[in-house]
Amino acid sequence: MTDPTGPGPDVPPARRRGRPSRTETEAAGPATRDRILEAARAEFSERGYEKTSVRGIAKAAGVDAALVHHYFGTKEQVFEAAVEVAFAPALHASAAVEEGPLDGAGERLTRFILSVWENPATRAPLLAIVRSAVNNEAAAAVFRRLIAVQLLRKIARRLDLPAEEAELRAELAAAQLVGIAMLRYVIRVEPLASADVERIVARVAPVVQGHLTGE
Amino acid sequence: MTDPTGPGPDVPPARRRGRPSRTETEAAGPATRDRILEAARAEFSERGYEKTSVRGIAKAAGVDAALVHHYFGTKEQVFEAAVEVAFAPALHASAAVEEGPLDGAGERLTRFILSVWENPATRAPLLAIVRSAVNNEAAAAVFRRLIAVQLLRKIARRLDLPAEEAELRAELAAAQLVGIAMLRYVIRVEPLASADVERIVARVAPVVQGHLTGE
Repeated sequence: MTDPTGPGPDVPPARRRGRPSRTETEAAGPATRDRILEAARAEFSERGYEKTSVRGIAKAAGVDAALVHHYFGTKEQVFEAAVEVAFAPALHASAAVEEGPLDGAGERLTRFILSVWENPATRAPLLAIVRSAVNNEAAAAVFRRLIAVQLLRKIARRLDLPAEEAELRAELAAAQLVGIAMLRYVIRVEPLASADVERIVARVAPVVQGHLTGE
Repeated sequence: MTDPTGPGPDVPPARRRGRPSRTETEAAGPATRDRILEAARAEFSERGYEKTSVRGIAKAAGVDAALVHHYFGTKEQVFEAAVEVAFAPALHASAAVEEGPLDGAGERLTRFILSVWENPATRAPLLAIVRSAVNNEAAAAVFRRLIAVQLLRKIARRLDLPAEEAELRAELAAAQLVGIAMLRYVIRVEPLASADVERIVARVAPVVQGHLTGE
């Protein structure tokens, strides 16, 4: 996958192989950083965490590996940055909870998560993250930080409950949605895999709401 | 891992390397089949589906690869047989639903699935299956057949509802438990990962029950 807004493969920088000079690194700027990030996202999506290398990302971005390290650090840090981009649509789920009355949060959250998984453009990177997180501890740690800190805690804060209780509730609600994603989109068990979205929302939204605000 | 009931590495058959003769194949019998199955289970657990080979299984079992094919067929078929063994404890979950009144099925199923995941001896092979199923389509197909046919349909039959409706309900109940397994045991998000089992049962059993028998 290439970033349609970034420089295409037909307009490469004049000089880009080999260890970058200090001047080149400074001159590369945000466009190069974005190109590396997009290459990282594509590589991790396609190969998973373990089979992706900083060297491979550098090659795909048309830069030297040293430049990848310069911008992002270790492979785990490149992964975290790439996952943050790929996971960005899912992270808006906390907004779905925050915007609107609390008694409709279960349905808004359910609809939001299903819409992210139903859309092939956002499903592919999510699948890649799930695969990496299930297979590799470093990738799991990144995933854990992202969903715990950026998603679940934001939802929990909306619940007006002691933090630990609120976080556990947010996680049990998330568990229902994670399980549906696993069985419907990853393993694809029938009839769930082909069931109408509205039928799932009707059954699942009350459960998610119950976890968040039930007694 | 070696099967404590099978022949240990210190009592190998007199002649076991090289392509087996017809007589040897026939004489090998159930003990050899079990040894191959145990080796397959250990190899798939340790390496996952993609990195495991029939040759590696044969080597671990101390037999020729031809004998593995003789007993089980393709790599996918060896995997299916090994997963059936590793997954056997989880498949008893349908018994937890079947034995006892239907209005307690949610709690029995929740307790059963959590007990399988809490026990390190049964957790390790389950983790290996989940990892393989998430990463590989052939492994996902095996997993799909096993959980759909051997587990969810049995639970669904207990519900006295039209088959498709009953199966969808069983899958939504399973999704809540699969999601908890993912977040608690695979990704290990806190506070869910360290929460007391009884606290989880108290919140989750009514949800599972609701999916199975709610209006």
